[in-house]
Amino acid sequence: MSTLRFALAQIDTCVGDLDGNARKVLDFTRRAMQGGADVVVFPEMTLTGYPIEDLALRATFRSAAWDTADRLAAALGDEGMGGLYVVVGTIGTDHANGKPRNRLVVLHGGHVWAGYDKHFLPNYGVFDEFRIFSSGERTVVLDIDGARVGVAICEDIWQDGGPVAELAHMGIDLLLTVNGSPYEEGKTHTRLDLGARRAREVDAPMIYVNQVGGQDDLVFDGGSFVVDADGTLLERSPMFVEDLSYFDLDTDADHQRPGAIAEPLDADEEVYTACVLGLKDYMAKNGFTSVTLGLSGGVDSALVAAMAADAAGGDAVYGISMPSMYSSDGSKDDAADLAANLGAHYDVQPIEPLFDAFQRQLRLEGVAAENLQARIRGVIVMAYSNSKGALALATGNKSELACGYSTIYGDAVGGYAPIKDVFKTKVWALARWRNRAAAEGVGVGGLRVVGNEGFDGGVMPAGGVIIPVSSIEKAPSAELRPGQKDSDSLPEYALLDRVLEAYIEHAHGRADLLADGFDERTVDTVMRLVDRAEWKRRQYPLGPKVSALAFGRDRRLPVTDRFRE
Amino acid sequence: MSTLRFALAQIDTCVGDLDGNARKVLDFTRRAMQGGADVVVFPEMTLTGYPIEDLALRATFRSAAWDTADRLAAALGDEGMGGLYVVVGTIGTDHANGKPRNRLVVLHGGHVWAGYDKHFLPNYGVFDEFRIFSSGERTVVLDIDGARVGVAICEDIWQDGGPVAELAHMGIDLLLTVNGSPYEEGKTHTRLDLGARRAREVDAPMIYVNQVGGQDDLVFDGGSFVVDADGTLLERSPMFVEDLSYFDLDTDADHQRPGAIAEPLDADEEVYTACVLGLKDYMAKNGFTSVTLGLSGGVDSALVAAMAADAAGGDAVYGISMPSMYSSDGSKDDAADLAANLGAHYDVQPIEPLFDAFQRQLRLEGVAAENLQARIRGVIVMAYSNSKGALALATGNKSELACGYSTIYGDAVGGYAPIKDVFKTKVWALARWRNRAAAEGVGVGGLRVVGNEGFDGGVMPAGGVIIPVSSIEKAPSAELRPGQKDSDSLPEYALLDRVLEAYIEHAHGRADLLADGFDERTVDTVMRLVDRAEWKRRQYPLGPKVSALAFGRDRRLPVTDRFRE
Repeated sequence: MSTLRFALAQIDTCVGDLDGNARKVLDFTRRAMQGGADVVVFPEMTLTGYPIEDLALRATFRSAAWDTADRLAAALGDEGMGGLYVVVGTIGTDHANGKPRNRLVVLHGGHVWAGYDKHFLPNYGVFDEFRIFSSGERTVVLDIDGARVGVAICEDIWQDGGPVAELAHMGIDLLLTVNGSPYEEGKTHTRLDLGARRAREVDAPMIYVNQVGGQDDLVFDGGSFVVDADGTLLERSPMFVEDLSYFDLDTDADHQRPGAIAEPLDADEEVYTACVLGLKDYMAKNGFTSVTLGLSGGVDSALVAAMAADAAGGDAVYGISMPSMYSSDGSKDDAADLAANLGAHYDVQPIEPLFDAFQRQLRLEGVAAENLQARIRGVIVMAYSNSKGALALATGNKSELACGYSTIYGDAVGGYAPIKDVFKTKVWALARWRNRAAAEGVGVGGLRVVGNEGFDGGVMPAGGVIIPVSSIEKAPSAELRPGQKDSDSLPEYALLDRVLEAYIEHAHGRADLLADGFDERTVDTVMRLVDRAEWKRRQYPLGPKVSALAFGRDRRLPVTDRFRE
Repeated sequence: MSTLRFALAQIDTCVGDLDGNARKVLDFTRRAMQGGADVVVFPEMTLTGYPIEDLALRATFRSAAWDTADRLAAALGDEGMGGLYVVVGTIGTDHANGKPRNRLVVLHGGHVWAGYDKHFLPNYGVFDEFRIFSSGERTVVLDIDGARVGVAICEDIWQDGGPVAELAHMGIDLLLTVNGSPYEEGKTHTRLDLGARRAREVDAPMIYVNQVGGQDDLVFDGGSFVVDADGTLLERSPMFVEDLSYFDLDTDADHQRPGAIAEPLDADEEVYTACVLGLKDYMAKNGFTSVTLGLSGGVDSALVAAMAADAAGGDAVYGISMPSMYSSDGSKDDAADLAANLGAHYDVQPIEPLFDAFQRQLRLEGVAAENLQARIRGVIVMAYSNSKGALALATGNKSELACGYSTIYGDAVGGYAPIKDVFKTKVWALARWRNRAAAEGVGVGGLRVVGNEGFDGGVMPAGGVIIPVSSIEKAPSAELRPGQKDSDSLPEYALLDRVLEAYIEHAHGRADLLADGFDERTVDTVMRLVDRAEWKRRQYPLGPKVSALAFGRDRRLPVTDRFRE
């Protein structure tokens, strides 16, 4: 038989935006047809966006999603693309109990031609699928022009047994998987190993199409790929960008021909780009075109500003220097230099007159007076946010947040916190990487830097430095009292971050941490800080629930922002 | 045979506080032995507290919980209580896969004598049990001095089939259930109906012991009860307080003798008391002894202040009047009257000088200038919070929060929001109820009002009014510009609340709402407001995740505050 051409449509969807997602499927399918594709494969829950959480439980949303799939199939037919097989993810209904299902449908001949429901529903980490979906029970092999194509959805390939094991017995020519797999440091290798294992299990090539883009606090990194039946990598799409790649399946061949394999990214570049994409998409999906943030001259705000400029262009960044009586001249200069390097807007708003006005009434001392400074800055940042319609960015890093070393409603103010999951030592590494990238004139990850010519070499400052070196090299300080240093209150970051990683990421207990070789005083300090910081992070959302649905902490509320009923 | 005396120990546990919870079990068991009990029954997950969420996934916590159960059993034996059967909830391990289990153990003879693992793991609404636990598979009948006692844990009786159906076939003398069932308006009747149905199913009396107390954003209302085999209510413990009641089982009798049946509460009293208990326990479990809040003269802050005084005493309430140029004299008087009625601390902090200082630098207009006023108030409230170590209370109600009619980092500031789940029309009803209760000299629910003699009739103002009538009766206004009224921006609350209830609680879509009889303009206004408010509620926690665990929105983080490793 002749070969079958698969298009891997690695797209960025938006939760709830049924019409927008369907338009994008139509657009990519047109391009794939131009590219000679027979089958076009989109990521998990393409039409609904992913993860949709409890929006899945709204009956009106499910019915609108179903109508969208029908209309899309018809539109494909009307435009002469009915001969293609278009694989899209959406939401279905379990007719036995009315529960939603995580479904893959194949659009063909102007109709929904075939379907498959996800078996394994992940219910750990960021996933809550067992909560909202019921499990599929059928294993599906599609006959596409004579080729036997087995299908699976994301978690189905992460668990042993189930549909993949059945497909292995049934005999297939290809395993086709659609995925919504969020980014985590180092996950690329894990996915490739898994893909190779499953391809060997079913003794056929495997296609892995992943979603790309930021959705609230998750970033999907794309990196779709194809492995041969023996586990050989045949194709890999780039990370962090939408992409359309092709794979030609020859069912008569023992081995498939390799295609383009995107180079892996540098480890720091990967995290930096994930953060930029998360911010870029949060802005786009929530209707923001600019951001505002305080520029202290420190490395955290400098890194966040650079990410913002990479996400939206320097001209979309409103940086505010808010010096106090304790701010060093160096800090003020560094903030100004950074803004100039980025081509960002830059205002100076001294807080001393405001601080004095409050103190005439309140006469605060100690930590309360320190927090007052941070909160005055928070008020100014939000004033810029409200006046300019700009998204306020919080600049806290993961080490600070873990230890509660920040002022709630002060420096913690913001609608989005680009480095909230980046330890301080990694912040320094990312800042250094960004400067290196500027000096070498490379782009940022696979991301197209829109409207910010600086990074394409146009107005790059001499030496290619984006983030002032002194911001990176000086000892970290909140500058809320004379001579204050982070190290007065926290262990050195090189040590702190290692303890935090063991305590938080690896759930090591006190005895484990001591066995890890950390000294008792450090362990007890860090555990106390982290445990005490917990309630700070829960500020405001908490309050008693007296009905079925409450606002605040309860993140289960239906988000219908983009789903117009 | 002789009768077997069961003590229903309806206690208030604290998540993570293994030692404190074990001490309380010991204390109540001592009292129950004095009362002649043979069996003492505590609520679901007594030792660990409930709900423990992902804390269950920390291996060190599970092992500490197991040690606690062993030590507690030994301590009971050492104190001469080894002859009792003490039923406590805790966490177990599924040895097949290492996953945690929701377990009930019976302590007897100085040892853990028997155990049962919950079968049905609720995974909807506020429950995430399937996420963290594995299901038990054994059905357990305890032989207690010859009586056949079947056991079940909470959700086991809410689902048909499973252990209760098996117990019905096995034949038992009593169905014993331990529960952690959170409060919701009207749930008392639902639970009683369910209990009667299950008792009839197993053809034996059923004991339902529920937890009481606030835990983060949940309130457990207690209201433990016993129903006879024919569904007759035999005993009911009071709501919202710790309690020790008894039930004597006579296995030879066809019908059991009724005991004390607590009167149901008035519907408004019930919600009011739930809010007070939630706040009281949030304070106690997080180490706060006082609160601070802005007193605007409006009904929301007045109601919250009254709740706070009922939770902690008037002397523990720091009320701050923060009048602006737009505040009416009436509002200022009402705030002062309220504070006097409550015996609360009361300061006046005018915001005009601070507003002027900001405006000299920022020159804000419109909504930005309105928000500035609210944010200056937020800074002042937090200054009081930091200076006095007092918990800041947010006073927003559910109608406001649903519509985004509040200023983030302004009036939304606070560590706890006592009326976040109370619609505005209910706020008025609760305020009126509180005044009525004061006038009639009744207590607040079953709650003991500690340290606030005012409510016991000591310093009750003439006429018994707590909340100034003008705060309740005047048209709601944010007073952020001249002549502003809530009704400029929102439908009248009587209408708004009905639409919100249909849209949010009942998930009615646009077509459903029109069919409900609401007019199109109102429906579209409310839907737009609610949908747009969503991102406001998500401020700050959001940011990209690049590792296994991130801070902020991810509420899965281990809370180890009270669990000292």
